[in-house]
Amino acid sequence: MYTCYVEEISSNQILHLLCLISDVCLSDLCTLWTGLTRIKPTMSFYPSYLMCLCLGILCVVFVSYWNAEWRGGFAWDGSSKQFNWHPVLMVAGLVVMYGNAAVVYRVPLTWGHSKTPWKLMHAGMLLLALILSVLGLCAVFDFHNAKTIPNLYSLHSWIGICTVALFASQWVVGFVAFLLPCCALEIRKLIKPLHVWMGAIILVLSIVSCISGINEKLFFSLKGNDNMTQPYAKLPSEALFANSLGVLIVLFGLVVLYILHNQSWRRPELGHDGEGYRPLSHEES
Amino acid sequence: MYTCYVEEISSNQILHLLCLISDVCLSDLCTLWTGLTRIKPTMSFYPSYLMCLCLGILCVVFVSYWNAEWRGGFAWDGSSKQFNWHPVLMVAGLVVMYGNAAVVYRVPLTWGHSKTPWKLMHAGMLLLALILSVLGLCAVFDFHNAKTIPNLYSLHSWIGICTVALFASQWVVGFVAFLLPCCALEIRKLIKPLHVWMGAIILVLSIVSCISGINEKLFFSLKGNDNMTQPYAKLPSEALFANSLGVLIVLFGLVVLYILHNQSWRRPELGHDGEGYRPLSHEES
Repeated sequence: MYTCYVEEISSNQILHLLCLISDVCLSDLCTLWTGLTRIKPTMSFYPSYLMCLCLGILCVVFVSYWNAEWRGGFAWDGSSKQFNWHPVLMVAGLVVMYGNAAVVYRVPLTWGHSKTPWKLMHAGMLLLALILSVLGLCAVFDFHNAKTIPNLYSLHSWIGICTVALFASQWVVGFVAFLLPCCALEIRKLIKPLHVWMGAIILVLSIVSCISGINEKLFFSLKGNDNMTQPYAKLPSEALFANSLGVLIVLFGLVVLYILHNQSWRRPELGHDGEGYRPLSHEES
Repeated sequence: MYTCYVEEISSNQILHLLCLISDVCLSDLCTLWTGLTRIKPTMSFYPSYLMCLCLGILCVVFVSYWNAEWRGGFAWDGSSKQFNWHPVLMVAGLVVMYGNAAVVYRVPLTWGHSKTPWKLMHAGMLLLALILSVLGLCAVFDFHNAKTIPNLYSLHSWIGICTVALFASQWVVGFVAFLLPCCALEIRKLIKPLHVWMGAIILVLSIVSCISGINEKLFFSLKGNDNMTQPYAKLPSEALFANSLGVLIVLFGLVVLYILHNQSWRRPELGHDGEGYRPLSHEES
């Protein structure tokens, strides 16, 4: 019936119809969204946090299982089994531990307490993430050196090494500015927005490095020129599994970035200078 | 002289020394930073915007030159010359045009005028970016089909196709919500923060797709098993050039994300509801 009349409808009527459809659909969506945003911020935080924790665990389980099941397991002997530590340690350190450390201050349970123990936990988790990442780099450098494969030639390695270097610099500046007791409050106030932004950017770069690395590894391993493996293009179970790991890493990153972005989940700070930046009390900084 | 006394220094003295050094270094940095942030926001915006424009042009020049000089140029005939359109169109559309469209509202020159022409420019540039991206996908699908290579098996292709699908959905929802004249103001208010966040996330996913794609293409092309090319691991000039393209794409993305993140470069909106969200007037929404 619609097709019979389609030529008689003017452009104004089409616009009106489009508006009607969009208003009905979007209204339903907005009613739901308004309902969700009216839930107390502390309550609405936890589903996202739970998703962050679950996705983080899944990422570590997936990357470990992939290398244990299809890549021959782990060793520290210069063989390809040593290489297998590289993806596991980078995903566990540079993505999962890093992402969880980044959202520590957003957990509403911590807001009622002194900030100092949470600062120590934030710095401690990030130090652990940095150590895991450096070990992950050692695994691949050792493997390359043992096999006389050149280091740092691929785009993946260029982005990856820059990410770890940025992360290390961010940790040192963060330690000096926010943990050394004598750092001036003015300095902390100036550094904090950049520290928060850089934190998110390092996570983005980690995800870029991980996705390009998994993609590269699958092309290397699944050449299909022996009887043991099907080529990547035929999507054997290993390819499906490792591609899913990549998707999980991206989803984990997006959930962490969403938590960091949401203003209502930021730890409340004391004071207000009226210029959009909230100065920190000595205790809060 | 320092080494003679090192064992006599107590841990407190080391902490004091560390604090002194950090305070001196950070103070210099902060004096510079404070000076920079005191410049009028409209003035401080332009260096970043100029960097965004220059990096964008460089990305397009680099990706075109790479494919013209080392990959045999362009055609639309199912050959590898058709594939060469894929990186050029994706970088030009999904990264450069997209990134420039995302920051249109941040240009202070546009703030004194009605928002409508800038909304049309934002939507128009994004539509052009979407068309370029879809053409880029057609290039690779056609090439694969002509060579009977399966489509959508690699992690790069999974992330890439999801990015374009998200981008298309974002464009349609943005068009319906912000350009159709009858969309309720309440709906626009609710959608806008999610629209802005999704906009940044789509750029992140574009960069993930591009970096993994360039990395994959270099491993494919630079196998070093013919007389024409050196292997990727020996970093021939093509590898150095295309790796640099990857670095330029990441830098472009970071500059765009920095511009989007900076609160003082947001287009001033009218009114205030006191809850951190500034409602939009009909003209401004």
